[in-house]
Amino acid sequence: MDDRDLFERITRAVQPALAQGRVARYIPALAAVDPHRFGLAIADTDSRTPRGTGDWQVPFSIQSLSKVFTLALVLAADGEALWSRVGKEPSGAAFNSLAQLEREQGIPRNPFVNAGALVVTDRLLTLTGDARGTLRDFLRAESGNPRIDFDAEVAWSESRHGHRNAALAHLLADHGRLDNPVPDVLDHYFWQCSLAMNCRDLALAAGFLARHGVRADSTRLLTRSEAKRVNAVMLIGGTYDAAGEFAHRVGLPAKSGVGGGIIAVIPGRCTLCTWGPALDDHGNSIAGITALDTLTTVTGWSIF
Amino acid sequence: MDDRDLFERITRAVQPALAQGRVARYIPALAAVDPHRFGLAIADTDSRTPRGTGDWQVPFSIQSLSKVFTLALVLAADGEALWSRVGKEPSGAAFNSLAQLEREQGIPRNPFVNAGALVVTDRLLTLTGDARGTLRDFLRAESGNPRIDFDAEVAWSESRHGHRNAALAHLLADHGRLDNPVPDVLDHYFWQCSLAMNCRDLALAAGFLARHGVRADSTRLLTRSEAKRVNAVMLIGGTYDAAGEFAHRVGLPAKSGVGGGIIAVIPGRCTLCTWGPALDDHGNSIAGITALDTLTTVTGWSIF
Amino acid sequence: MDDRDLFERITRAVQPALAQGRVARYIPALAAVDPHRFGLAIADTDSRTPRGTGDWQVPFSIQSLSKVFTLALVLAADGEALWSRVGKEPSGAAFNSLAQLEREQGIPRNPFVNAGALVVTDRLLTLTGDARGTLRDFLRAESGNPRIDFDAEVAWSESRHGHRNAALAHLLADHGRLDNPVPDVLDHYFWQCSLAMNCRDLALAAGFLARHGVRADSTRLLTRSEAKRVNAVMLIGGTYDAAGEFAHRVGLPAKSGVGGGIIAVIPGRCTLCTWGPALDDHGNSIAGITALDTLTTVTGWSIF
Amino acid sequence: MDDRDLFERITRAVQPALAQGRVARYIPALAAVDPHRFGLAIADTDSRTPRGTGDWQVPFSIQSLSKVFTLALVLAADGEALWSRVGKEPSGAAFNSLAQLEREQGIPRNPFVNAGALVVTDRLLTLTGDARGTLRDFLRAESGNPRIDFDAEVAWSESRHGHRNAALAHLLADHGRLDNPVPDVLDHYFWQCSLAMNCRDLALAAGFLARHGVRADSTRLLTRSEAKRVNAVMLIGGTYDAAGEFAHRVGLPAKSGVGGGIIAVIPGRCTLCTWGPALDDHGNSIAGITALDTLTTVTGWSIF
Repeated sequence: MDDRDLFERITRAVQPALAQGRVARYIPALAAVDPHRFGLAIADTDSRTPRGTGDWQVPFSIQSLSKVFTLALVLAADGEALWSRVGKEPSGAAFNSLAQLEREQGIPRNPFVNAGALVVTDRLLTLTGDARGTLRDFLRAESGNPRIDFDAEVAWSESRHGHRNAALAHLLADHGRLDNPVPDVLDHYFWQCSLAMNCRDLALAAGFLARHGVRADSTRLLTRSEAKRVNAVMLIGGTYDAAGEFAHRVGLPAKSGVGGGIIAVIPGRCTLCTWGPALDDHGNSIAGITALDTLTTVTGWSIF
Repeated sequence: MDDRDLFERITRAVQPALAQGRVARYIPALAAVDPHRFGLAIADTDSRTPRGTGDWQVPFSIQSLSKVFTLALVLAADGEALWSRVGKEPSGAAFNSLAQLEREQGIPRNPFVNAGALVVTDRLLTLTGDARGTLRDFLRAESGNPRIDFDAEVAWSESRHGHRNAALAHLLADHGRLDNPVPDVLDHYFWQCSLAMNCRDLALAAGFLARHGVRADSTRLLTRSEAKRVNAVMLIGGTYDAAGEFAHRVGLPAKSGVGGGIIAVIPGRCTLCTWGPALDDHGNSIAGITALDTLTTVTGWSIF
Repeated sequence: MDDRDLFERITRAVQPALAQGRVARYIPALAAVDPHRFGLAIADTDSRTPRGTGDWQVPFSIQSLSKVFTLALVLAADGEALWSRVGKEPSGAAFNSLAQLEREQGIPRNPFVNAGALVVTDRLLTLTGDARGTLRDFLRAESGNPRIDFDAEVAWSESRHGHRNAALAHLLADHGRLDNPVPDVLDHYFWQCSLAMNCRDLALAAGFLARHGVRADSTRLLTRSEAKRVNAVMLIGGTYDAAGEFAHRVGLPAKSGVGGGIIAVIPGRCTLCTWGPALDDHGNSIAGITALDTLTTVTGWSIF
Repeated sequence: MDDRDLFERITRAVQPALAQGRVARYIPALAAVDPHRFGLAIADTDSRTPRGTGDWQVPFSIQSLSKVFTLALVLAADGEALWSRVGKEPSGAAFNSLAQLEREQGIPRNPFVNAGALVVTDRLLTLTGDARGTLRDFLRAESGNPRIDFDAEVAWSESRHGHRNAALAHLLADHGRLDNPVPDVLDHYFWQCSLAMNCRDLALAAGFLARHGVRADSTRLLTRSEAKRVNAVMLIGGTYDAAGEFAHRVGLPAKSGVGGGIIAVIPGRCTLCTWGPALDDHGNSIAGITALDTLTTVTGWSIF
């Protein structure tokens, strides 16, 4: 099947989904997005030129998609030692659960629940002195787009409505799990989530996960084994408390964000990024799941 | 039995207890207290002159004992409306549990778990503009001791080690349960806990609970029914997660603090205050429980 | 106030309550009861002749009221040793919670949650060889009514719908907390709950709790201290997960049952039994709470 | 690398692991197994002849490995409708958690936690009238070994020590989730777990998962999509509460049992079965994980 046919089938499948769900409303900046937007980009491992359809070049708020990249950056520096700070098990609870973090004595279940991402950001801050800046520069480099930047309004809005993340950060601090002051960690976390990017740039930026750890410039970010492990933890915990449902329908390692983006990886073949702002009850893009479901059904691509 | 005999028996019973347990260590200012201290005061409803023994005139950090008084002050202003902000059920969990607060959608189980006390302090702050000052003035008035004051070192120390209380406060704020900014609420809370008082003054200050709501100057703070209800909630939740054990052994409404103090009430008869800094695993003074157990056994005083 | 005035005031207060709530529906035998029934009996410590009003001589299913009596019977035999098998803390969770029992490693929080009552029945079975028979004979003796008996239909119905109690019993057995086979323990438990009694007989039967442990025939069942402790655990855990609310409104040690009965104790003065089949969300009789609330308000009787 | 080299490397890697961990002790029949046993079998999709090493032809108790096969048999009959009875999310809690089942209103998180397997067995019993017999016949047919049979001693022993499973079954029944009587469901469940098989036969029997749903006789058991979904749920929940750790180290869909067996699938290529009785704290075979870790590292086989 050629690209045009594939994109057409996906676009058709996605139409009914666009009317469903609700755009994230917890901050005004996200609530204002048009729920009928849809974009899809595919970046093959053996090509510099991604393909895409729909609103694939319209920037949106990457939110939790940032967690894959900060994880990779810290893993590149710390290697296996990172896993003493954060687990790699599925959460079995809401992504922002305080009860779970309390039960686990301040060791977050995985790097994609909010508490885990705060621990990763804290570590990146210690390693680099500027977590958010390091992330932005990495994303610019991998996508080749120097205009990628923070959305100050989103960051400020998150910070004003970030009581739950503040609660998580203080609970981590209570357990001695943060090296930096709580306000600094929260700050870098809110800013990293506020980055605005489009599907094209995100598919490119995640390319190292399909290339077994190799960056766009052919240098190595992660060992083959580390890249495999990031994919494993994406499958286990990348789509909030619906990882099983996602693995069931799509069957690919993936990470979603409440801005409506989903990054998915087919190791050795390509990376995908979808965008559709309307979310299901778990916080995953309805259009994005439908698109990836259709794509894997049509192409037969799956890791299982 | 006359006072001398009673005090002697209690003092003898308490001796073995003084060597057990551990002084609260979470802040340096508390960890430095001599664990062999012991004091007991009794303030009869029909007398201005309290009786006491041991270190009953040595000031200590009142900590959670403050929660009884802030509760009474807010109840005096808000009446039954208060109970929509905070429950009156036993907690069945640790006094600083985030899991429980999350499960209860930000409505603390009772005013004596930390989250509940934060809600009460927040409300007192709204009502008076100065929660800690209002509390201090009330305690000075009831005890007739104008020298009662905050211990700045304790307050500062609590604030530096108060990540768990900060987590609770942010979780409350996330559920829209606080009217004032989180830092303000925490501030007043830490300062109110830092007040230094002795057994004598505390027994006097709590006198309104034995006098069915009537203050030292014979004005009414609480209705008879409200005073009964404060006693009920003390019995249900005044001694952390060991309310049942305490009711079992002592059988009196009481409130304990990690500074080693316990206030107990015999409605219509007297208020008691004990001090012994070494705590059991639940955070209650071992010497205090032993003293009150002995006293109720010897005198037959009990509400049951 | 004389009895007639008191009963009239209570009866008037109770009227609106009779239309509210729902009769227990989990077994057909209970669902068939007329929700408009109401009875109240008072048995003074210094009299053999109880007073009462309304349907105070109509038998109903005692259900969990049985738990007070089995507790007293085992406590009389085992003394303090009993408390290694079952706790005495408020539950802070539903009366039939498996999660809580799992968390507590098979030690029920108190003798009034279902798991705790199963442990008590198991022990009574070991001590006597016939738990249900021992209970029936005790209730006959204390009330002076030899016609008190089991309701086979209720017992059989409970047993058929008793999956949750069976789950609790098996979880206890898994933790090695039962001495007798699970089916035997369940059997005696279902039969003990099926006993049919009226307010008059129940107020008489509970008389030892107001007489500090002394039975109807002036022999001693419990020490003064043990009787005090049963009252304490009733206050802490006698009204399901609403012990705080009940202590708040009524302020007396009490035990409720889903058959609509409530036993309450005023130590040294009297025992009370109310009956009203319609229950609130916690499983407590709405009419019963209203009646006891009115009675304590009017008379000023309270332990606080 | 040829088989001999591969097997030698794995066998060497496994040696230190054989001395660690503990054999399952909850029933005598399992506790008696020699912890130094180790076997490995590989069944390629394009061959009838499996390869193996060590104790690969020594039978052991399959225990929870049975859950993959009962799931497949019910899925073949019910299709997607099955997922209204049981979830497909990671558990995030112990495999035999009652708390979780209670929280989820009797819908087990996935078919591999004990509660989920009971629901599947209940359904297989309804569909066939003989769940355990159907399973045995299927395993005989797929492996070509007609001597595969139950171990009555193990089944009897499980049943005698099966209080926790009985608790789970009664809790399911309380929520109306079982169609058959609790004792029948437990019976078939204990017998299915008691089947004794060796690595060779298990690798053959699981072959349909690597052949995208096609049985040994080339008929289709599951659609391609259904087979993919069984693999997905194995990855998410096949190795108790260590699915993330297992995905991290091995990176293959797998199911483990407390008898020490692990079945793993490389879709399109082969199925693997390892056996090593000593278990880690999560209940997974230490030797088995080490062997599969070594094998995937050496061969580069992984789904990520």
